[in-house]
Amino acid sequence: MADQLTHIDEKGDVRMVDVSAKPDTERVAVAEGFIAMKPETLSLIVEGKAAKGDVLACARVAGVMAAKKTSDLIPMCHPLAITKAKVECTPVFAGERPDGAVGIHVTTTCGVTGKTGIEMEALTAAAVACLTVYDMCKAVDRGMEISDVRLLRKDGGKTGLWERTPSA
Amino acid sequence: MADQLTHIDEKGDVRMVDVSAKPDTERVAVAEGFIAMKPETLSLIVEGKAAKGDVLACARVAGVMAAKKTSDLIPMCHPLAITKAKVECTPVFAGERPDGAVGIHVTTTCGVTGKTGIEMEALTAAAVACLTVYDMCKAVDRGMEISDVRLLRKDGGKTGLWERTPSA
Amino acid sequence: MADQLTHIDEKGDVRMVDVSAKPDTERVAVAEGFIAMKPETLSLIVEGKAAKGDVLACARVAGVMAAKKTSDLIPMCHPLAITKAKVECTPVFAGERPDGAVGIHVTTTCGVTGKTGIEMEALTAAAVACLTVYDMCKAVDRGMEISDVRLLRKDGGKTGLWERTPSA
Amino acid sequence: MADQLTHIDEKGDVRMVDVSAKPDTERVAVAEGFIAMKPETLSLIVEGKAAKGDVLACARVAGVMAAKKTSDLIPMCHPLAITKAKVECTPVFAGERPDGAVGIHVTTTCGVTGKTGIEMEALTAAAVACLTVYDMCKAVDRGMEISDVRLLRKDGGKTGLWERTPSA
Amino acid sequence: MADQLTHIDEKGDVRMVDVSAKPDTERVAVAEGFIAMKPETLSLIVEGKAAKGDVLACARVAGVMAAKKTSDLIPMCHPLAITKAKVECTPVFAGERPDGAVGIHVTTTCGVTGKTGIEMEALTAAAVACLTVYDMCKAVDRGMEISDVRLLRKDGGKTGLWERTPSA
Amino acid sequence: MADQLTHIDEKGDVRMVDVSAKPDTERVAVAEGFIAMKPETLSLIVEGKAAKGDVLACARVAGVMAAKKTSDLIPMCHPLAITKAKVECTPVFAGERPDGAVGIHVTTTCGVTGKTGIEMEALTAAAVACLTVYDMCKAVDRGMEISDVRLLRKDGGKTGLWERTPSA
Repeated sequence: MADQLTHIDEKGDVRMVDVSAKPDTERVAVAEGFIAMKPETLSLIVEGKAAKGDVLACARVAGVMAAKKTSDLIPMCHPLAITKAKVECTPVFAGERPDGAVGIHVTTTCGVTGKTGIEMEALTAAAVACLTVYDMCKAVDRGMEISDVRLLRKDGGKTGLWERTPSA
Repeated sequence: MADQLTHIDEKGDVRMVDVSAKPDTERVAVAEGFIAMKPETLSLIVEGKAAKGDVLACARVAGVMAAKKTSDLIPMCHPLAITKAKVECTPVFAGERPDGAVGIHVTTTCGVTGKTGIEMEALTAAAVACLTVYDMCKAVDRGMEISDVRLLRKDGGKTGLWERTPSA
Repeated sequence: MADQLTHIDEKGDVRMVDVSAKPDTERVAVAEGFIAMKPETLSLIVEGKAAKGDVLACARVAGVMAAKKTSDLIPMCHPLAITKAKVECTPVFAGERPDGAVGIHVTTTCGVTGKTGIEMEALTAAAVACLTVYDMCKAVDRGMEISDVRLLRKDGGKTGLWERTPSA
Repeated sequence: MADQLTHIDEKGDVRMVDVSAKPDTERVAVAEGFIAMKPETLSLIVEGKAAKGDVLACARVAGVMAAKKTSDLIPMCHPLAITKAKVECTPVFAGERPDGAVGIHVTTTCGVTGKTGIEMEALTAAAVACLTVYDMCKAVDRGMEISDVRLLRKDGGKTGLWERTPSA
Repeated sequence: MADQLTHIDEKGDVRMVDVSAKPDTERVAVAEGFIAMKPETLSLIVEGKAAKGDVLACARVAGVMAAKKTSDLIPMCHPLAITKAKVECTPVFAGERPDGAVGIHVTTTCGVTGKTGIEMEALTAAAVACLTVYDMCKAVDRGMEISDVRLLRKDGGKTGLWERTPSA
Repeated sequence: MADQLTHIDEKGDVRMVDVSAKPDTERVAVAEGFIAMKPETLSLIVEGKAAKGDVLACARVAGVMAAKKTSDLIPMCHPLAITKAKVECTPVFAGERPDGAVGIHVTTTCGVTGKTGIEMEALTAAAVACLTVYDMCKAVDRGMEISDVRLLRKDGGKTGLWERTPSA
């Protein structure tokens, strides 16, 4: 493990890390998130989805737009000219997860040709897609809970490929 | 449970719910989030905190600013003139949580005098504070994971007080 | 007709008009817009709509979000805590319009309880919903054209009800 | 005509199209828009323009700033580091247009060296410049109407030059 | 002098101060700023102003728009529904100031009916108007310098009227 | 001195200068700003800093985030993918400055590999960091004043190195 947090300089102050000298390389990041809910809430979303798909359509749009706002939200994050963003939302029914939770599973993929990685964009998209589901269903289920917001895979840049090890 | 998702109208289209006729009442929401990490990562943050506190200071600032951006991130969320926002970040060491996870626990409180609730602001602040911790430590720990992003308590408005029941 | 543009002061400089002394009243505005396209482009959207509805779902979400950004886009426009926003997108097939144009008709409704009107929000939502349709279909039809972006009706405030007169 | 809307993937979900593998090329787009108004309204603007030019100056500034916000407004639009943006506003007097309309004609030019086109920036600038004129004159003329928001010309990228054919 | 910085709580953490219980009152703030430059630079602006007024017109628009972005820029600043914003830019020629500086003097006035003061909006508008002048003239004068960004007067709220004492 | 303001075209209209044909080069800019205050106010900040450092930590974060918002604030400023941003805040005690002023001195450094300079980002970061200090201390000292917002050094691009000459 590196012995230094790169966003903190020799005096302990925050900074946006200098990446001026790094080459532009093609980078990709895949992240996920999950929002657990009552089975009845999932039914309402899925029935809506069967008819018009709007809760999940809205969450997908919100996730893509959030990816583009990442550097505006995360203070020390570099602005990046994202070249790819995709948000998928999949209903998870009873019995599909080991922990028994029911809800929506979000997977995001972001890409860029740039000097620094795009992990934050993928994670932010996942978090905001889950928050959007919460917003649109909170009138019927305030107890929903977001978890599993984490990086699954990133590639490109000096450190190359990283993949989440199972059950990490 | 209500049989209708309020953000979806009779035709299944999304909309920002009409709250024009609702009175302005004082409202508050408390939410939380947790980011799990390697114990070594927590040590780096805490040592930094002892010296200058900057990772957590940055996360707190990011959380407050994100609360103000909520309606810009969440498509059907009403803009609100927030009157209060606070983000607290507490290190959680080995043995403090039943599941053994080590990391940073975030608690957020938002308030408003308005026509609609402020739950989304509190939840968004919690999520973004956690994402900021991820950003500032990702160079040493890409496997960090955000969970427990959920509402703890809300009060005000027609539905009044709601509190998370233990182990909900 | 008033003999003064209210955004321009006695010296000819722009300003955000002072509405401090105006009472808060409930206001609503309805606007529309139209994007003309090749019949084949409309078919692609409608077939997509039959399956998942995503082009129009995306346009509706974009329109609602744009309503919330209006005062950030229009320099002298007051920020308003919108209480209602809705965007409807209707396909218009050959023969339905007197001018024979085929495309998507957008209608927007915005509401607020405030010191100033919400016409700009409704108009901005309509324009951005049309621009979003353009963006999502431009790969197959660069010649699409946006027209009819205009106010249909506004109510509330000192000037009260205004409705577009037919063929105005 | 292509048989696929590029913003919609094989499952019908929206996405920001992947342009990672496309080369950076110099691109330009020219668009226009028109806002029709009463002749008296145009007189007020033009007289103001003679003195200080502020309505149109404000519209030009708003148009340039809107070009920079395009990817924040249009959900599936890629962020671009715009290298050029210009907005021109020309009064159109009675008798100058075949349809007899009086108002302001807006022409926008945007440029970028990037992986994807800049048409949306030029169109968004045109639409927002027109909306700004509406906002600044609406106190005297609520019936103004925006039309002709369309691409005139784009160049660069794989598809090269495209020009609007007369009367298209 | 109060013995406590209100943005810092009992533990020393930042927070957005709770103003939920404060009444809405009408508030106003007047601020100023000055950008010093070479006399030749001022001549270019003024000649431009005589013709079209665009440097100062652009600065005025930028100042008004910045007032609306204040709570997005200043972390612990409350969002406010501004009801009034005005930015005036006056050329200052040789011999007009005691210190002999030549440049543009900016005065801003902001108003709101709200629970907290609007000083930050007036100050931010002044600073951004000066920065805009810098941007538009920097190609000919990189040595320009912004000073005197300060509050002149504020009124309303619990603390009532405050005015800068001469030579403060 | 150049005889033309580059942001104004042959007709006197504002525009975002065309930099499409300029090569990408590595650029850096260093700027500063100063906020003068009562000695008691500085003591409160410094004591806070000794304990938790939050006023200055907040100002540093605000400055870095403002650098990223520069092209959204300054109308004719090009958007840039900043590769470096750092904000330093240093207390200045009685006797340290020739003019006797007491307060916080801010120094900012921004970098980019791009077609145009990054001076505006460094200046905007400095101004916003100072405004943030004002906001956090205004309850105890409304008379604070921001000055010395100026460029210290810039390098890269066609014009190469520029440094402020002493006492300029």
